[in-house]
Amino acid sequence: MATDAMSPKITVELLRQLRQAMRNGKCIAEPIQAYIIPSGDAHQSEYIAPCDCRREFICGFNGSAGTAIVTEQHAALWTDGRYFLQASQQMDNNWTLMKMGLKETLSQEDWLISVLPENSKVGVDPWIIAADQWKNMSKALSSAGHSLVAVQANLIDAIWEDRPARPSTKLIALGLKYTGLTWQDKITALRGKMAERKISWFVVTALDEIAWLFNLRGSDIEYNPVFFAYAVIGISSIKLFVDSKRLLDAAVRQHLELDSPSKPDLTVQCFPYESVFSELNAVCAALAPKDKMWICDKASCALTQVIPKAHRAAIPYTPLCLAKAVKNPTEIQGMKMAHIKDAVALCELFAWLEKEIPKGTVTEISAADKAEELRSQQKDFVGLSFPTISSVGPNGAIIHYRPLPETNRTLSLNEVYLIDSGAQYRDGTTDVTRTVHFGTPSDYEKECFTYVLKGHIAVSAAVFPNGTKGHLLDSFARAALWDSGLDYLHGTGHGVGCFLNVHEGPCGISYKTFADEPLEAGMIVSDEPGYYEDGSFGIRLENVVLVVPAKTKYNYRNRGSLTFEPLTLVPIQLKMINTDLLTQKERDWVNDYHRKCLETIGAEMERQGRKEALDWLILETQPIV
Amino acid sequence: MATDAMSPKITVELLRQLRQAMRNGKCIAEPIQAYIIPSGDAHQSEYIAPCDCRREFICGFNGSAGTAIVTEQHAALWTDGRYFLQASQQMDNNWTLMKMGLKETLSQEDWLISVLPENSKVGVDPWIIAADQWKNMSKALSSAGHSLVAVQANLIDAIWEDRPARPSTKLIALGLKYTGLTWQDKITALRGKMAERKISWFVVTALDEIAWLFNLRGSDIEYNPVFFAYAVIGISSIKLFVDSKRLLDAAVRQHLELDSPSKPDLTVQCFPYESVFSELNAVCAALAPKDKMWICDKASCALTQVIPKAHRAAIPYTPLCLAKAVKNPTEIQGMKMAHIKDAVALCELFAWLEKEIPKGTVTEISAADKAEELRSQQKDFVGLSFPTISSVGPNGAIIHYRPLPETNRTLSLNEVYLIDSGAQYRDGTTDVTRTVHFGTPSDYEKECFTYVLKGHIAVSAAVFPNGTKGHLLDSFARAALWDSGLDYLHGTGHGVGCFLNVHEGPCGISYKTFADEPLEAGMIVSDEPGYYEDGSFGIRLENVVLVVPAKTKYNYRNRGSLTFEPLTLVPIQLKMINTDLLTQKERDWVNDYHRKCLETIGAEMERQGRKEALDWLILETQPIV
Repeated sequence: MATDAMSPKITVELLRQLRQAMRNGKCIAEPIQAYIIPSGDAHQSEYIAPCDCRREFICGFNGSAGTAIVTEQHAALWTDGRYFLQASQQMDNNWTLMKMGLKETLSQEDWLISVLPENSKVGVDPWIIAADQWKNMSKALSSAGHSLVAVQANLIDAIWEDRPARPSTKLIALGLKYTGLTWQDKITALRGKMAERKISWFVVTALDEIAWLFNLRGSDIEYNPVFFAYAVIGISSIKLFVDSKRLLDAAVRQHLELDSPSKPDLTVQCFPYESVFSELNAVCAALAPKDKMWICDKASCALTQVIPKAHRAAIPYTPLCLAKAVKNPTEIQGMKMAHIKDAVALCELFAWLEKEIPKGTVTEISAADKAEELRSQQKDFVGLSFPTISSVGPNGAIIHYRPLPETNRTLSLNEVYLIDSGAQYRDGTTDVTRTVHFGTPSDYEKECFTYVLKGHIAVSAAVFPNGTKGHLLDSFARAALWDSGLDYLHGTGHGVGCFLNVHEGPCGISYKTFADEPLEAGMIVSDEPGYYEDGSFGIRLENVVLVVPAKTKYNYRNRGSLTFEPLTLVPIQLKMINTDLLTQKERDWVNDYHRKCLETIGAEMERQGRKEALDWLILETQPIV
Repeated sequence: MATDAMSPKITVELLRQLRQAMRNGKCIAEPIQAYIIPSGDAHQSEYIAPCDCRREFICGFNGSAGTAIVTEQHAALWTDGRYFLQASQQMDNNWTLMKMGLKETLSQEDWLISVLPENSKVGVDPWIIAADQWKNMSKALSSAGHSLVAVQANLIDAIWEDRPARPSTKLIALGLKYTGLTWQDKITALRGKMAERKISWFVVTALDEIAWLFNLRGSDIEYNPVFFAYAVIGISSIKLFVDSKRLLDAAVRQHLELDSPSKPDLTVQCFPYESVFSELNAVCAALAPKDKMWICDKASCALTQVIPKAHRAAIPYTPLCLAKAVKNPTEIQGMKMAHIKDAVALCELFAWLEKEIPKGTVTEISAADKAEELRSQQKDFVGLSFPTISSVGPNGAIIHYRPLPETNRTLSLNEVYLIDSGAQYRDGTTDVTRTVHFGTPSDYEKECFTYVLKGHIAVSAAVFPNGTKGHLLDSFARAALWDSGLDYLHGTGHGVGCFLNVHEGPCGISYKTFADEPLEAGMIVSDEPGYYEDGSFGIRLENVVLVVPAKTKYNYRNRGSLTFEPLTLVPIQLKMINTDLLTQKERDWVNDYHRKCLETIGAEMERQGRKEALDWLILETQPIV
């Protein structure tokens, strides 16, 4: 019943239509020789609403990262190591897969220069390309005699007959109990930062920043509790651009004090979502000569270019992005609670799987559904935080695999099972990966798992000075794999939001160094090394960890040190570990971790009366001797 | 006799004169409100000739890195952690030390913006500021309403009465025995790279690149066997700009085939050094519309701006820089031989010190002199590769300390001794640091030394995939220190030239990630973690290591793996090690290393009949049990 291949999307006709639109048509002033279809929406979101899945529409590949480029003769898709296998399976042979991160792979710019005829025009929708990407691409193309042009009407939308409408879901107002700070407090703190830097306006375009700032959540984008909006914050005014129907809700009106603002400078002025372009234009027209306006250089090119250069202060990440990343005590407490509830559900799943798998009836999809069902029984559950990666054997090697009916494998006693899953609770967001075997793992599987575990521990137990950037920790996760000639082609960790996006900036742990802010106490990141053997199995071990101060024997130049505290408390399967490969320190770490799982999750299971899961937990947290 | 303080340079009068020159004078068209004095020369060299020591002249600080800025009211110097102590001792209180790398330290741009009156002009000599630095500085100043202006006549030169003349030393032509490739081979390979990228001209400004390309050496700059020159390489022409007196030498004429060129496109056309500006202008005037010219973005702003933007292809490092970094088999063999000879000399020094120190007559300076004397006895010795850092006790904490009569301490049985030294031999360049104690080190000194040793081994024994950048290895060197709350404020390693500069790009091992090219087999870098306790002692352990292929159990995606082979073969003092803190793997590494020292250096000592040194070596390479 299960097959190993996803079927590719047939794109011959779509490409014909797109190329026709590129040549003339009502859409563009003059023909373009190439059209770029980025992955994001007008907010440069990583996860996007169905109406914004233009890159998937044109090429079939539905991973979270990738850019398609179509020329008269070629069609190519760039994506990273997580998605090489998946992309090659989802695209037909009209498409060339460009594997990013490999030395021999041309960049988009170099590829365009190599295939385009002289003096070509390359088109892109300025709303869905970030300003910094526009700048780099435009510079590279110009230097080779081509030009990048903004195509106002999106050419994919023009050929996409049944394109869904933009969602406008109900907004949820979060109280102090969840947020720790009122939106008024956050606006005031933000204005303090603006004043420090002599900034008079700040254009907020990232959906999670707007949700965090206003203590509002939505469900416009699956898995991400955000809503389509823009905000323009001045020193004494607040402009929110959002579908006006959403503001009819009494709770939302009260939360934003729309009908009775307490202070003039904390009065929210609401405008329709679409009017951001014209309103920002109006604000810019009225700027004093010295006024400066912050906008993230990852904001859309379209909106960025509204701001005259003399007034534009482009920043690589915004003060909201940083403020949101450093969780306050209420948020930390909420994240801890969310992870405890989440661990109860996941332990229950594993206890259930152990019982059910021998019957041969559990599949990747049914296991994922069961995980969701168990999570949904927990308090304040809202939904999943990303599509569950539930993968057996070779499917585990597809790093961002999502089981589909045509790929669905049955869980068995013979293959490794990898489940990477998480949920949104009103008090926090979770993201956890465990790799387990329900029969007897091979020595090679255990060896690889143990290297991954050693890397996981090396990061989790690392002590490092205040001010250290996450990318300096990435190699700790790889050293044990590297020693044996192994590696994994993805970063080691990402920031995690608090009842917000499961991936957030500006910190992370990766060999890539872009937009990497120093780690600070209160930040929350994932620690998730892995190893993937194409066609055979995948291993990943992921905890969400909190950055905390570390006690050290000495304190060089009074800088202070940091380390990580795991928030995820789900046992690591001992059966998968070759304990001979662990040092005593690593064994102690595993035993300490399991003791903490048993104490904390065990207590919650007792409180919830989940006896079977507790029995399972007790067995799974036996110390290594 | 020894004192602990260097005396600061008195700068009141010089600053008065400089500020006068900034205000009006014959030097500039209109007054400037600030003047930037970078560290480098017109070739952006790290080590510079006396005539180019303008920054030292104005502020007194003579470290290898630092930028001075003088305004009407302020004078400030930016330097990095290696030099904080030294700079604070060498500058008088007219100067503010700006400690780079600390969070609270303003960048040069931000500082200028904070102190300058509105619409200020900031001047700089365009020949000694790199094009990329000019661009960044200019952009930052413009965004705050100021402007960066090129001041053609150097204002320091204008007030520097007894400024030395530019040196023009004898050139040495290196044969194939040392270089492995003729200069004609190197030009041909370079033109191949230019053709690949459709580049018709390449302006070479870095002195070590010119020396390497032409297989010539000079001694214009102390410690660096280079000579003042520029080169402009076309697809069929070679223009060398060098003081014409140097080309009267018959050996040089023959080497460059000046009188009987073998091929037209391998004919070297010689021009006076100073004519590079006008000749490059002439070349640029004759460019075809599609011609592109390579120039490094670290070349001087003055020369970069000669090339019209449409023809300019600025690159972060040049193909010569990369070709030079990957040593050929002849160069590797030469580097190995140089390190063997160097180790003989250094072992002799330590044997001598052990005997002499109890007499109380050996000082930092006399020890350094003895080291030079012993090195000079070795075959093909040319000179030192940098000023010897010979430092006792608290002087060891001054990271780039150089003993002066007024700071000179006596070596004793009570203090740690750190010696960082190296030499130029015709077959290679060395750079080695050992930290030793001739009495009984304290437990704390041993503990710190052992953490540094663990870091040194972690890098030296690291196995990592082909394509890994050096900065990904930096944290391995720090992990043991970090665990105890310690750290060091410098990078872990730098590229090392082959009878060339002891510091060279484009690879290295540092937490900083700029211009960091992937490590390749054949590259040579240093591995030199340290620990410094201000006012007390300094520890550093440095080997020069060669990047070599590593054999691994598996080979993920056929990428292949790399590791390091130490070229430096000088024992690590066992007395300084707390062996309880070492893992078994680390103990094995030390024993293997010492076995190799004994075999290789011992054999050479026997050949040279250096009996006392051999006896010392045998004792110092006893295995740890």
